[in-house]
Amino acid sequence: MEWSQVVRSNPARRTALVDAAIEVLAAQGARGLTFRAVDEGAGVPAGTASNYFRNRDELLTQAGERVYARLLEGASQLTLPDDAPRDRDLLVQLMVGTVRRIVDYRTGFLALLELRLEATRREGVRDVLTDRVRADLASNVVTHEQWSMPGDAVTVRLLYQALNWLVVDALTLPGLVDDADLDAYVAETVERLLPAP
Amino acid sequence: MEWSQVVRSNPARRTALVDAAIEVLAAQGARGLTFRAVDEGAGVPAGTASNYFRNRDELLTQAGERVYARLLEGASQLTLPDDAPRDRDLLVQLMVGTVRRIVDYRTGFLALLELRLEATRREGVRDVLTDRVRADLASNVVTHEQWSMPGDAVTVRLLYQALNWLVVDALTLPGLVDDADLDAYVAETVERLLPAP
Repeated sequence: MEWSQVVRSNPARRTALVDAAIEVLAAQGARGLTFRAVDEGAGVPAGTASNYFRNRDELLTQAGERVYARLLEGASQLTLPDDAPRDRDLLVQLMVGTVRRIVDYRTGFLALLELRLEATRREGVRDVLTDRVRADLASNVVTHEQWSMPGDAVTVRLLYQALNWLVVDALTLPGLVDDADLDAYVAETVERLLPAP
Repeated sequence: MEWSQVVRSNPARRTALVDAAIEVLAAQGARGLTFRAVDEGAGVPAGTASNYFRNRDELLTQAGERVYARLLEGASQLTLPDDAPRDRDLLVQLMVGTVRRIVDYRTGFLALLELRLEATRREGVRDVLTDRVRADLASNVVTHEQWSMPGDAVTVRLLYQALNWLVVDALTLPGLVDDADLDAYVAETVERLLPAP
């Protein structure tokens, strides 16, 4: 069987390998990410991952894509009731849900942080992540405007900045941001970033 | 000579080893940080670092302390002219200077990010970093109030959140935040976080 057929023939296994790569990144750091560690994590025979990914960069970038895809999947299930007023309360509610989704996908976010650091060392990873984050921010601005939410494009970018670091604190130093206080921190961030009502 | 005397006798060498550890963390990640790598980075005979640090945790936490110490050293040199109005322009100027100082100490900030990830794996690192960040934030609030700057404790925390992630973007994905635009991003962050004048 051709290499390309193997790849196409088993997308579920490919996904399982990428998910194992995310767990390895979070648990052991970027330098711990080897084909062997991924095979072990996925519980597949040694040599399997090397049939699915041409090299380590491909594994790294697909891990990043997978984290974004899973987070966006959660976001796409959001629907807004037509009669909900587009006010700060609604934006708070949306942002609380978004941050909760990210914090609950703990290993995904930690893997993305590892990829950010790996981006300082590997141009291929840097290019893919740059495009992905830029597209993600642009898409957030479009959604914000389509939903007629309060604030503007700068609000969206500042929410992205402030809430990403809040997640860093919550996941890496939980003594600093207690889980019980997380929603209140998110609400405060939104309220301060919006123009006064 | 006793171990403790060796340590006391050569503080300059100790600092050189900690600085080498910061460079190793930034270049190779937390898993690359071994006594051997530090000895090599500092250009000292193999076995030197193991005479200065009891274990890897001690090396990691001292690297973190050193980054904070160097950044605070820069901050402590700031003086405000008595007649400067305590307004948003002054706060913008201070924050632009602070972010520039952090971005210029590129390997220091990247090493701190590595330590944040290592904190998810090592309780000792987590405890030291939690205390350090908490103390740093509290001290920022005190300075903010002593200097009668606009905004309150929440402003200080949100500046910390939003500007830290801005630095993450600037250092890991420079295509996203061009260096020439960095000061403008900082200014915008401050202006949006302060109550309207």
